[in-house]
Amino acid sequence: HYREESLQAQKRCKRQQRAKMLHNGGEQIQFDFTVSPAAERLRYILNEDDDMPTPTLFTEMDTLQREGGELEWKESARWVKFEEKVEEGGERWSKPHVSTLSLHSLFELRTCLQTGTVLLDLEGYSLPQIIEEGMISPELRDKISFVLLRKHRHQTKKPIHRSLADIGKSTSSSSECPAIGNDYSRSMNDIADSPSSDQLRNKFMKKIPRDAEASNVLVGEVDFLSKPFVAFVRLAQATTLGGLTEVPVPTRFLFILLGPHGKAKSYNEIGRAIATLMVDDLFSDVAYKARDREDLIAGIDEFLDEVIVLPPGEWDPKIRIEPPKKVPTADKRKSVFSLNELGQGNGAAGGGGGQSEDEEMPPFCGGLYLDIKRKLPWVPSDIYEGFHLQSISAVLFIYLGCITNAITFGGLLGDATDNYQGVMESFLGTALAGSVFCLFSGQPLIILSSTGPILIFEKLLFEFSKSNGIDYMELRLWIGMHSCLQCFILVATDASFIIKYMTRFTEEGFSSLISFIFISDAIKKMVGSFKYYPINTDFKPDYVTTYKCECLAPDLKSFDSNVTGLDWSQLSKKECLKYGGSLVGNTCKFVPDLALISFILFFGTYSMTVSLKKFKSSRYFPTKLRKLISDFSIFMSIMTFVGLDMLLGLKTPKLIVPTEFKPTRPGRGWLVMPFGKNPWWVYVASSVPALLVTILIFMDQQISAVIVNRKENKLKKGCGYHLDLFWVGVLMAVCSFLGLPWYVAATVISIAHIDSLKMESESSAPGEQPQFLGVREQRMTGILVFALTGVSIFLAPVLKYIPMPVLYGVFLYMGVASLSGIQFWDRIKLYMMPSKHQPDFPYLRHVPLRKVHLFTLVQIACLAVLWTLKSTFLAIIFPVMILGLMVVRKMLDMVFSQHDLAWIDDLLPGKDKKKKKDDDKKKGKEKKKPKLDDSEEEVRNSSFCCPPQ
Amino acid sequence: HYREESLQAQKRCKRQQRAKMLHNGGEQIQFDFTVSPAAERLRYILNEDDDMPTPTLFTEMDTLQREGGELEWKESARWVKFEEKVEEGGERWSKPHVSTLSLHSLFELRTCLQTGTVLLDLEGYSLPQIIEEGMISPELRDKISFVLLRKHRHQTKKPIHRSLADIGKSTSSSSECPAIGNDYSRSMNDIADSPSSDQLRNKFMKKIPRDAEASNVLVGEVDFLSKPFVAFVRLAQATTLGGLTEVPVPTRFLFILLGPHGKAKSYNEIGRAIATLMVDDLFSDVAYKARDREDLIAGIDEFLDEVIVLPPGEWDPKIRIEPPKKVPTADKRKSVFSLNELGQGNGAAGGGGGQSEDEEMPPFCGGLYLDIKRKLPWVPSDIYEGFHLQSISAVLFIYLGCITNAITFGGLLGDATDNYQGVMESFLGTALAGSVFCLFSGQPLIILSSTGPILIFEKLLFEFSKSNGIDYMELRLWIGMHSCLQCFILVATDASFIIKYMTRFTEEGFSSLISFIFISDAIKKMVGSFKYYPINTDFKPDYVTTYKCECLAPDLKSFDSNVTGLDWSQLSKKECLKYGGSLVGNTCKFVPDLALISFILFFGTYSMTVSLKKFKSSRYFPTKLRKLISDFSIFMSIMTFVGLDMLLGLKTPKLIVPTEFKPTRPGRGWLVMPFGKNPWWVYVASSVPALLVTILIFMDQQISAVIVNRKENKLKKGCGYHLDLFWVGVLMAVCSFLGLPWYVAATVISIAHIDSLKMESESSAPGEQPQFLGVREQRMTGILVFALTGVSIFLAPVLKYIPMPVLYGVFLYMGVASLSGIQFWDRIKLYMMPSKHQPDFPYLRHVPLRKVHLFTLVQIACLAVLWTLKSTFLAIIFPVMILGLMVVRKMLDMVFSQHDLAWIDDLLPGKDKKKKKDDDKKKGKEKKKPKLDDSEEEVRNSSFCCPPQ
Repeated sequence: HYREESLQAQKRCKRQQRAKMLHNGGEQIQFDFTVSPAAERLRYILNEDDDMPTPTLFTEMDTLQREGGELEWKESARWVKFEEKVEEGGERWSKPHVSTLSLHSLFELRTCLQTGTVLLDLEGYSLPQIIEEGMISPELRDKISFVLLRKHRHQTKKPIHRSLADIGKSTSSSSECPAIGNDYSRSMNDIADSPSSDQLRNKFMKKIPRDAEASNVLVGEVDFLSKPFVAFVRLAQATTLGGLTEVPVPTRFLFILLGPHGKAKSYNEIGRAIATLMVDDLFSDVAYKARDREDLIAGIDEFLDEVIVLPPGEWDPKIRIEPPKKVPTADKRKSVFSLNELGQGNGAAGGGGGQSEDEEMPPFCGGLYLDIKRKLPWVPSDIYEGFHLQSISAVLFIYLGCITNAITFGGLLGDATDNYQGVMESFLGTALAGSVFCLFSGQPLIILSSTGPILIFEKLLFEFSKSNGIDYMELRLWIGMHSCLQCFILVATDASFIIKYMTRFTEEGFSSLISFIFISDAIKKMVGSFKYYPINTDFKPDYVTTYKCECLAPDLKSFDSNVTGLDWSQLSKKECLKYGGSLVGNTCKFVPDLALISFILFFGTYSMTVSLKKFKSSRYFPTKLRKLISDFSIFMSIMTFVGLDMLLGLKTPKLIVPTEFKPTRPGRGWLVMPFGKNPWWVYVASSVPALLVTILIFMDQQISAVIVNRKENKLKKGCGYHLDLFWVGVLMAVCSFLGLPWYVAATVISIAHIDSLKMESESSAPGEQPQFLGVREQRMTGILVFALTGVSIFLAPVLKYIPMPVLYGVFLYMGVASLSGIQFWDRIKLYMMPSKHQPDFPYLRHVPLRKVHLFTLVQIACLAVLWTLKSTFLAIIFPVMILGLMVVRKMLDMVFSQHDLAWIDDLLPGKDKKKKKDDDKKKGKEKKKPKLDDSEEEVRNSSFCCPPQ
Repeated sequence: HYREESLQAQKRCKRQQRAKMLHNGGEQIQFDFTVSPAAERLRYILNEDDDMPTPTLFTEMDTLQREGGELEWKESARWVKFEEKVEEGGERWSKPHVSTLSLHSLFELRTCLQTGTVLLDLEGYSLPQIIEEGMISPELRDKISFVLLRKHRHQTKKPIHRSLADIGKSTSSSSECPAIGNDYSRSMNDIADSPSSDQLRNKFMKKIPRDAEASNVLVGEVDFLSKPFVAFVRLAQATTLGGLTEVPVPTRFLFILLGPHGKAKSYNEIGRAIATLMVDDLFSDVAYKARDREDLIAGIDEFLDEVIVLPPGEWDPKIRIEPPKKVPTADKRKSVFSLNELGQGNGAAGGGGGQSEDEEMPPFCGGLYLDIKRKLPWVPSDIYEGFHLQSISAVLFIYLGCITNAITFGGLLGDATDNYQGVMESFLGTALAGSVFCLFSGQPLIILSSTGPILIFEKLLFEFSKSNGIDYMELRLWIGMHSCLQCFILVATDASFIIKYMTRFTEEGFSSLISFIFISDAIKKMVGSFKYYPINTDFKPDYVTTYKCECLAPDLKSFDSNVTGLDWSQLSKKECLKYGGSLVGNTCKFVPDLALISFILFFGTYSMTVSLKKFKSSRYFPTKLRKLISDFSIFMSIMTFVGLDMLLGLKTPKLIVPTEFKPTRPGRGWLVMPFGKNPWWVYVASSVPALLVTILIFMDQQISAVIVNRKENKLKKGCGYHLDLFWVGVLMAVCSFLGLPWYVAATVISIAHIDSLKMESESSAPGEQPQFLGVREQRMTGILVFALTGVSIFLAPVLKYIPMPVLYGVFLYMGVASLSGIQFWDRIKLYMMPSKHQPDFPYLRHVPLRKVHLFTLVQIACLAVLWTLKSTFLAIIFPVMILGLMVVRKMLDMVFSQHDLAWIDDLLPGKDKKKKKDDDKKKGKEKKKPKLDDSEEEVRNSSFCCPPQ
């Protein structure tokens, strides 16, 4: 409601600023801000039949040239939205650019339309007909007809042999007709009636909307005129006028300017001016609906009133201005003229399905009910939208992340629990939990995975049960069941409302922390390989003869009958130690090359991925190929470095996937029984640790979900916090029964999932920037990832070629990539930038730099505290510390004004609209409230896709 | 002459285009291109006293605001050349940007000046006085005075405690004066008479030229006016009006706009319009010289006539446009109004000393004479201009390049000549030849070094003399003497005229070839280290016990008495082989880690240098620090990786510098005697190989000199092809006598030398781009480099820590860096770019892409042929092949038009002006000749600094 109001206020304001006529040159200072006559006229005609949208206009400008003694029309520029110029010498199209006009030419154009011929709704189906009917001056008609009917040469891509043939043709035809210079009476028609094959084959057609019509601008110098001849023609029906237009698009408008010799440059500029006007959203509407000459003039005046002027001393008109990322929408400009503007205008803005605020909600399980109701209609599209090339790269990328995670956590869990849960369980659990969640959850873009806090909890739990003689698996089952129950209670009571208090501050703190953990883990692993494969830095190549490592038999007194028969010198290192031998020599503790090659693989994978990702914005190769390279960058880097590793053949540590389907620990089966091994009170008491697990899971799950559901991701299918939590609870119980690890949403992998599924619009008009459209929201990629994880056990023969350092490189990339785009990170960078070099972030325009710095500092401090705690045993309550972040954020309300927080963070519930209005009124000087500015509003991102209730 | 003509043609054309008044709204189409009344007026006043330049204007705009119930003026924007806005909420200055105005506000401003108060040359030394004298409406005078005399609050950087103090002050003063709202009669003056300490301390003063004057724009809403009050005041004398201006700059102009409430935005826009006008070069002239109101209006009309207009649908006015790299110069714009424009205007364009074309030249040794005459006056500046921080980094960089080169070539020469010339000779020769050349040559930026062709020549010569029983050193001496003589003949006959035929085609072909050699050598060396330190790819860490390498004694039958006593197992690899032992074992031929660490050092040095070089254009850190980092990038990367190498302590191959001052080969002395060892006919016959050496040296030297003297380097002290060749000849003889290698100009190192000495202007007005000013042309860096090379023999203890792979990384960087910026390289990249993504190179606008591609293809083919020849024994005539390149270029005249060649290459002598004019006339359609376009002309680079005769 608030936004709507402000939008209307803006419109009203805009209309008030709207100028009166420019040309009164009045004697007295008049600031009359009433509606000008021009605007009044436009308002009238633009509202006539508002329901019928006018077609898009494609404008082509041709200039008259003398080629080999013969006159012909040569295409010199074209407009879909931006200008493309024919580079005369270069015989090519320039890049699309913003048309920079001279004010002078616009005024000359205005005079032209005031005094020249204006023919509206002319009936005519071919160019000769139009000329016959339309042109009023009979004495010049024949000559003008002759000129207008000359051949049109378009700037299209031609193979060289064909352009050579063209030249031959034109010279031969020039010898045919004698003394063209003066013979204007010949009414030879060089223009075909139907579109030529050149036109039909023109690939540029793709860039023009289907319903488009053409406007043709023809300017040139002739020697039979003493004053310029100008005609503006609108045809009653759009008609394909043969070879007039580069593409087979029917012509609706014709602008003709012929004049005496010597002023070609001026004619050209006028031509460019009318062409630019014709593609202007507002003026093209006017041109379609104009009743008379005056309407057109009014259209020009309105255009002039809105133009942006650059001072000549600060800008060189020769510079071609690149099209901007975003231009004001036509609707906004047109809305000024709309009569029934009140109560409209916000229709398209809301966007996004599932805005459930107004829906009725049952008191119990209401959130869950609404979640299901919201998600159900999307189920079919969740399936078929998955079939896209991009999905393949996403699946590969996330799959590799998932199995790396599964192996890492599997290994760690195996260590922690004495192999009760190992790599095998980790693979199975990931596959099971992940695919179930992706199938039924509210937000299938979330990827479930083992996380650090759970690992630490399991470790402590195992130690506890071991030292107290309690059966670990059974205890764990009961904790899982209790926790599942508690999750259900949280779902039923709609406890997820708490995420309303998770603002950007909390979100970014959490996700940067997770990113840092990824980065530090990757680096730790890398450093670890230097410890695991120590380098002999004292190695002197010349003294290679002195390096050896031998296995010496143990003291003979204590020998074993098994050992006596051994050839000690033939034993491997492990065997030697196993049989009690001792290793003697100066190379025993060193491993050559492996550490360094690991580093090369690690760093190579990381930096190649980064470079290939960046390749998208390079100039090389066609856009589609670049996009493909960028999408598959991780896959390509992995392949490259796996190939390098295979080529070198070094024994780098490889990915080892279990190949046999059986529990890691021989003693245990696939099902855990709930009763029998522990005393009864354990079943009850386990609800206390379960509470910890529940909080842990709840926080971990919901904050990741908030991050995934961020507004900036433009998700359309809504979220499902309650439904998500429900399934996480169910999976807790199932996994506990099967003795598999527990799973919650993994922030970094989920972000990577979203990033790899982002869609951009294919740019339509040349020069228009592709817009971020949203994410391919579907369930297929997730399901495929986890299906692949499940069958990975059978993929072992392929996967075993992947060296671990390559995967650590992927980990590093994931961590770094998920940091970029976080505002917190941008703000940290600000510390190192002198203020004059800082990027033009919207919040920097509205919040003093020292406050921004202070805010960042608080965040850094919070992160430092969290990082320290994470490294201690307190790591287990780590997700609970998110609550701590939320408390800190609450306290920030006392230090920062709501205005500042609205820009650098979000407002907490209750602190919003009213409080803010009062606040602003009291201050009375902050004229521009953040909420008022519509375009900037979109830059700022609120964290909610939809607030759950 | 040609350029001058075209410039005038351009001016005439410009004047013709100049518009008549904009506002005639005439009934008939009038394209009257005569001089408009506005232009006529301006022409009159601007020519009045053309000799006195007007001061630069600093414009400050203050808006009236109510702060804590009290009125005050708050600075809202300022202009030196571009606009800087105060970000209200952000309490900071925006980045400088191009002022985007609305046409509407410009017209309103025009009306304001037509009807408001205009006071020119008002006498007044304080604001109250000005108000008393100037304001005409007595009834409002008091109220307006009161408003105008309110305090001015400027946007300056203040520590927080002081801004808090300010707030306290303002509230206390507000309690003093009751009911401010209506009490306008109180003439309380809040403005001090003298500049405050705040003003004096303002660092922004640096950015404003010394002679600047201020113009103050004051706009605001008041409640006692029913219609706007406007005043434009020019003071007779620029006066410091106390706290009015942010900086202590005297005020010359005042623009005041006060009006009724409700139109603040409109007033603001008008204020921005007049402020932008005031900093416009042309309008500020008009403002200084205006005689009456009409002159000002004429100034606005002229401004309007030149403005650049952006259509509202293609550009969002909210986007702040970054200042362009280059704006049209004010002189060009003003010249239209200059009466005596003919025969002027090209004065400053010529530039650069030593344009010797018109100088008289003696017939014999004329070039040499002119060279000396040209260079002599620069000698003192050649010394003192060397004292600059940048020189240090240049010296370090080039020094490292030189000693690496000296060691590499020294080693190779030692191999080739059986140590007659070794590393020691190479060091001494480099130091001697280099420093003499830098001291006395015509172009001290050229760095002499050993080059490939000379090396091959020496190799063949040594083999020839060895197999024919001729004394190598004596033969070499005679060849050197003959060659020296031949060089003198070339100098005396001014043979260097041939470089006129070396166009961009030849230059770029040669320098890319040299760059490729650098790159391929660096990579070859790197690959070599993988061969030199083979990796044991089969190493299994677990079987470390089975790896050994033992020295076995040779067969006992053939033993030597020396050898019997040896402990064979204790011998090193070399000793073992020396004494005839054999190495047995599976590790003998492998060296661990060294190859990989070499790769890491090599690639690390290269990529760190590239990244640090790029750091200059990053946003982080202040500009000066960034420049320092960029300048010292090579030094920093070398230090980093030397440090890493020391840290690891691996036995990587290090730089080995000879430490004792004695010839490498024991048998030879420091002086070669000319007679005695060879038969007499050898002394005569040696003139034949000498001819080859001379051609070789001549071509190698001159083409490097052409590349160094390129126009784009903006060298000011002229060149000295003849003088250079003279000294190279002298050094040939000297080196031959001393038995040192021969030296010629080294392309890549010379380019690196120039690059490291490039100067950029410190940007003056905020937002202006720094311009490339030229190169620090001096002799100090070169001399220092070679002095350091000479004493390197004593620096051995330090230099021995530098690993060779780090130096190969520097080589790679040098090769790659000298490729970038070569147009040929840019054109090769075009092959991989779809045409719509290609950069907007000037030649692409004028030459069809297929022709550009064809030209590039010819170059690639030539390079391929050269590369192939270089790899055979023909390498010795390699520089002669440059002649081949020149022949190919000559033949290209038949394939390409002169127009095309003028854009992508240079024209050959004789093919230029006349031929081209004819050519264009014949075609008659290429309206825009390349030479006509002045701004583009500067982008294209002719290869001559000065054409030698």
